[in-house]
Amino acid sequence: MNEKNKLTQLSELGEFMIIDKLTANNKTVNSSTKKSIGDDAAIIKYAEDFQTVISNDLLIEGIHFDLSYAPLKYVGYKAVVVNLSDIYSMNAIPEQILVSIAVSNRFSYEALEELYTGIYEACEAYNVDLIGGDTTSSKMGMMISITAVGKAKKERITYRNGAKSGDIICVSGNLGAAYMGLHILEREKKIAIETNTNPDWSEKEYILHRQLRPEARRDIVEYFHKWDILPTSMMDISDGLSSEILHICNQSKCGAKIYEDQLPIDKQTYNAANEMNLIPATVAMNGGEDYELLFTLNPNDANKLKDNNQITIIGEITDKLDEIDLIAVDGTPVQITAQGWNALLTQK
Amino acid sequence: MNEKNKLTQLSELGEFMIIDKLTANNKTVNSSTKKSIGDDAAIIKYAEDFQTVISNDLLIEGIHFDLSYAPLKYVGYKAVVVNLSDIYSMNAIPEQILVSIAVSNRFSYEALEELYTGIYEACEAYNVDLIGGDTTSSKMGMMISITAVGKAKKERITYRNGAKSGDIICVSGNLGAAYMGLHILEREKKIAIETNTNPDWSEKEYILHRQLRPEARRDIVEYFHKWDILPTSMMDISDGLSSEILHICNQSKCGAKIYEDQLPIDKQTYNAANEMNLIPATVAMNGGEDYELLFTLNPNDANKLKDNNQITIIGEITDKLDEIDLIAVDGTPVQITAQGWNALLTQK
Repeated sequence: MNEKNKLTQLSELGEFMIIDKLTANNKTVNSSTKKSIGDDAAIIKYAEDFQTVISNDLLIEGIHFDLSYAPLKYVGYKAVVVNLSDIYSMNAIPEQILVSIAVSNRFSYEALEELYTGIYEACEAYNVDLIGGDTTSSKMGMMISITAVGKAKKERITYRNGAKSGDIICVSGNLGAAYMGLHILEREKKIAIETNTNPDWSEKEYILHRQLRPEARRDIVEYFHKWDILPTSMMDISDGLSSEILHICNQSKCGAKIYEDQLPIDKQTYNAANEMNLIPATVAMNGGEDYELLFTLNPNDANKLKDNNQITIIGEITDKLDEIDLIAVDGTPVQITAQGWNALLTQK
Repeated sequence: MNEKNKLTQLSELGEFMIIDKLTANNKTVNSSTKKSIGDDAAIIKYAEDFQTVISNDLLIEGIHFDLSYAPLKYVGYKAVVVNLSDIYSMNAIPEQILVSIAVSNRFSYEALEELYTGIYEACEAYNVDLIGGDTTSSKMGMMISITAVGKAKKERITYRNGAKSGDIICVSGNLGAAYMGLHILEREKKIAIETNTNPDWSEKEYILHRQLRPEARRDIVEYFHKWDILPTSMMDISDGLSSEILHICNQSKCGAKIYEDQLPIDKQTYNAANEMNLIPATVAMNGGEDYELLFTLNPNDANKLKDNNQITIIGEITDKLDEIDLIAVDGTPVQITAQGWNALLTQK
């Protein structure tokens, strides 16, 4: 990308040629994909005993991603993963995506190719087919719209409203990493602009990766399937644990206790929080974009979790509707409020 | 909308509240909709003998719509219709849509409500359920992403690649109206800015309507079903007849003759073209956004069309791959080239 004079202006190619070139090597792997890119619409057919699970997201440059530090390949990868995460959080398996992008003339064809490299990498990593979409222009910046489609047997789908008093509350992986990664990136961006030096990423690789190139928890959904575990409720953590547990409690009409000392926090997250004078537990509760799974289980299923070090029991569901509390290390209950990411509030 | 002081800032509401308020009265009518808005994803289930048809589009303010003359209600209606048209053009019936929007703080909550009024009007007019989506912020302007989902029996789906030599070429409705509507709107916008006068829309209502609030040809697909007509190929006219007939010929590996004197052109389109020194047939061939259906039929089916005054036979498919011609009124063949709308080329 250094040879500026070799970059291809989008206007040299035209809309149809851009789509044709970007999707020239597109291959599909799922038998449910009956017709991919190339017509007015794509065709999918799942087996009779499956329902179709579908979700759509819009990612905007400057709001959801910052190209001053996020490589386009990672932006493409993350855009897909974020959508697949919505399908997994229904306990379903994604098999197709449709991708529409809008870009201004600021972008070269090669930049779009880099974005699509990330999109295809995610498709390959998650066995998902790219089956449709659109490429158009924007007045300013880049927008990416992704629709993810998946399948699940009706009786296996997990909603937000099934949590019952006595259920255990679990999360996959660890929390707050993506949020601390974002903080570090924002700080180093500022320093780099002011001092014209290169940032030092040592001991921060993991949290940066969690922010720039997250993964969806396909492994957890596959583990549920293997061990015949059916969560009573589930959602993915995109806005922060506080916000998500409130959704589950509101929709399930129940209360919850989450134990501060049970929150899974990675060492890099912990250190970065301390370095920036943030409380690690607050970061774990309110940091968004982890794309971990939050779920509740009948306590009888707890013994099925012991072979999986990627799952942590962090609390329990209660029947006290107005008590959704974080139990601090000293035993004090603190009411949980949603302080998570809110694009419309934080917008300058 | 005149009482400026009563408008609600989006930042007063927050992301979740906005979605909740906009979708508070959302009702679903199709039995295939198993789970609508309110979870990480929506759930659809079509009967065993149907395949799922799916399409996704991204509409950008300043590229696809101009809020200086398009009311938000119409923008919402059109955004839905444009996507439904993609489903009808596969000879399928749309039953669900997902809508994601991004807006800057320039917009009030009431503006979004107006947009959604149009979206709901289209849902009601076409018996489609709004089942999901996302609301987020943008740095500048409004973006609308719509995914349309529909159903069709496998053997009824029409692709672009099935046209055969000897087939007749047909279009629904008339052509060029939306393009002339756009021209008039652009001209009057300029005059209104320069002279501070209100534009005179008399004798132009139809073409303005075709541009601002088009309809998808559900009636044609229903007619096919009723009379057991199966087009050999079909697509909707979004980029212009020239562009679309080239797609069909390229994918079907055939040639085509289209007769200039057969092109259906409305009187208002004809008059507006003359007024602006444009050739009506050129407008009909290259004007986009009509969302009429272009399809080919086995000539044996021609007699089934005679009761439908909304369908015009405009030409025939040939086996001469390199001859895709408009036959002028004097009999001269003129090679058809795609001069249709190309957002990336026309972008300033």
